[in-house]
Amino acid sequence: MELYAVIMAGGVGARFWPRSKEKKPKQLLRIFGPNSMIQDTVARLEGLVEKQNIFVITNKIQKAEIKNQLPDIPAENIIDEPFGKNTAAAIGLASIIVGKKNKEAVILTLPADHIIKEKDDFQKTLSSAAKFAFENKGLVTIGINPTRPETGYGYIQIEEKPVEDNIFKVLTFAEKPNYATAVRFIESGDFLWNSGMFIWRIDTILNEIEVLMPELFEGLKEIEKSLNSPNFEKTLSHVYGQLKSVSIDYGVMEKSQNVFLTRGMFTWSDVGSWEEVYQLTEKDEDGNALVGNTYCQNTSDSYIYSPKKFTAVVGVENLIVINTDDALLICRRDKAQEVKTVVDYLKMKKLTEHL
Amino acid sequence: MELYAVIMAGGVGARFWPRSKEKKPKQLLRIFGPNSMIQDTVARLEGLVEKQNIFVITNKIQKAEIKNQLPDIPAENIIDEPFGKNTAAAIGLASIIVGKKNKEAVILTLPADHIIKEKDDFQKTLSSAAKFAFENKGLVTIGINPTRPETGYGYIQIEEKPVEDNIFKVLTFAEKPNYATAVRFIESGDFLWNSGMFIWRIDTILNEIEVLMPELFEGLKEIEKSLNSPNFEKTLSHVYGQLKSVSIDYGVMEKSQNVFLTRGMFTWSDVGSWEEVYQLTEKDEDGNALVGNTYCQNTSDSYIYSPKKFTAVVGVENLIVINTDDALLICRRDKAQEVKTVVDYLKMKKLTEHL
Repeated sequence: MELYAVIMAGGVGARFWPRSKEKKPKQLLRIFGPNSMIQDTVARLEGLVEKQNIFVITNKIQKAEIKNQLPDIPAENIIDEPFGKNTAAAIGLASIIVGKKNKEAVILTLPADHIIKEKDDFQKTLSSAAKFAFENKGLVTIGINPTRPETGYGYIQIEEKPVEDNIFKVLTFAEKPNYATAVRFIESGDFLWNSGMFIWRIDTILNEIEVLMPELFEGLKEIEKSLNSPNFEKTLSHVYGQLKSVSIDYGVMEKSQNVFLTRGMFTWSDVGSWEEVYQLTEKDEDGNALVGNTYCQNTSDSYIYSPKKFTAVVGVENLIVINTDDALLICRRDKAQEVKTVVDYLKMKKLTEHL
Repeated sequence: MELYAVIMAGGVGARFWPRSKEKKPKQLLRIFGPNSMIQDTVARLEGLVEKQNIFVITNKIQKAEIKNQLPDIPAENIIDEPFGKNTAAAIGLASIIVGKKNKEAVILTLPADHIIKEKDDFQKTLSSAAKFAFENKGLVTIGINPTRPETGYGYIQIEEKPVEDNIFKVLTFAEKPNYATAVRFIESGDFLWNSGMFIWRIDTILNEIEVLMPELFEGLKEIEKSLNSPNFEKTLSHVYGQLKSVSIDYGVMEKSQNVFLTRGMFTWSDVGSWEEVYQLTEKDEDGNALVGNTYCQNTSDSYIYSPKKFTAVVGVENLIVINTDDALLICRRDKAQEVKTVVDYLKMKKLTEHL
């Protein structure tokens, strides 16, 4: 069994403005420690997947910085899509490119911007899921045991009894719920968080796409014919221009009868907001997480990021402050999700220098 | 009766950090509208005091910028003290310099960094006080009718019955009170705010200094002898080196039996903190005063100053944000007085680039 990894790195991470920019979204930022999230994602595969078997799907804007940050990954493995067309297209494209080498290979599809703490447990989960996917030709997704009624995640409902050790048949996918529904999900015990990580054989996912997303499959066939030819870029652009934007969840996972789940036995977060960054960062005795050149007085439970300019904070609590070279965000911690609307405002006003 | 004005511009305005710097303290900032506070102070004298009769007492650090901001004031009228030695020395020095021209002239001593709204009423108050000071050789101070039990101002108690129209004998000077005392002062009806504005003849104040502050008087005599001579600077520096730092309130006003008060019939503030700036600035319908390049969402009752860098504020209230080229202050409005401690911290850490 040959293992490949495809790291999905197309996101723009608007909720991490003003640190995240179109050219440098969340996965390329050094939010926790000295490495960016995509560097951590690659490092987490060490010993499980060969470097030359790791691919990254991204876009033209981020490609150069990703090559920069991942010098050990072969440059030709960093694939840029001409347009963002959601996860189904990206996964399809990766499948035909990697499939040229080995159609029976197992691909681990992994978002570039998640936090996972226990590397060994993570690799054990992936290994056994890959073995199952290889032998049973199933689509395997990783579910996370929910620890709170989170309304920011999708959920997956599973059958009570495993089909084998830690492999469950999936019953339903559920979109991000409202709070009451999330509470019900948690209480039921058979709903897990959808981590967006998938494990399958290349031939398996392409067969599923052929049946469930025939238009996408036609496009992929056309791209496949042009692989390694001079008109590859042109074909890719032409095909992508026609594709609908569909997530792999909606296009395949929710419709296929061949979907399984394995429980991820590790600490996981998709770090969806500055509030989650605050939660995941070590705090001082006042509950403050301070990064850079700061001075606090009578200030508590706040996240202050000011790597260059000196920032003084007096008499506040529960605040997020992100002071970058060209913009400043001040946000109440429980409003961290609303940062996205600042980005919407900047887009509307065409203030592109801050995007 | 010849009228002179001496504008006291030595303050460092630590409570306006990070806008106020040693080189550019409060009185030189454009906090309200297009003019700095010292420019407003000079403009307020138009028609009452001739430009060549307006003097400014400051220090070496601010002198150049003051000349810049006040091009219509003769350069030789901008006097820099070698060291800051509080108001008694500054007033004494101004008295001997102006006294060379006319010992019987009346000097209006005015802080450079106060807000006064009604120019005509202000000039009327000064005119009648000057007339009284000239004829009666009294020390006249301007009192402000208190509108709240402010603990940040000094108070002056007066006799109930005026000695003539709007001129009252002063009974006592009171330091900045605690809250309970301030409430008592307000209720008594005979305590007014000490505005720090004084009106007197030069010979009157020098006679008072001779009696009540003989050491200062000796020094002033020595400086007077060196006026217009090549060793003036050296003498000034030598004399100032020996002087004690004493306020005119403590050194003369609290001890003299010759002190009167006139009620200032105009809107006045010494603008002692960012909170007072907020109070004095026009607000939008959410109670926000926004200066510069800002975007607010779910934000109310806040003062946001960000002339260059884009600042987004989400979900906060009652906040002061001062975002300058080299430092950022975030402060709860009711903690605006504590900004001074940030300056103390910067001094202690020798972070002079932010001072």
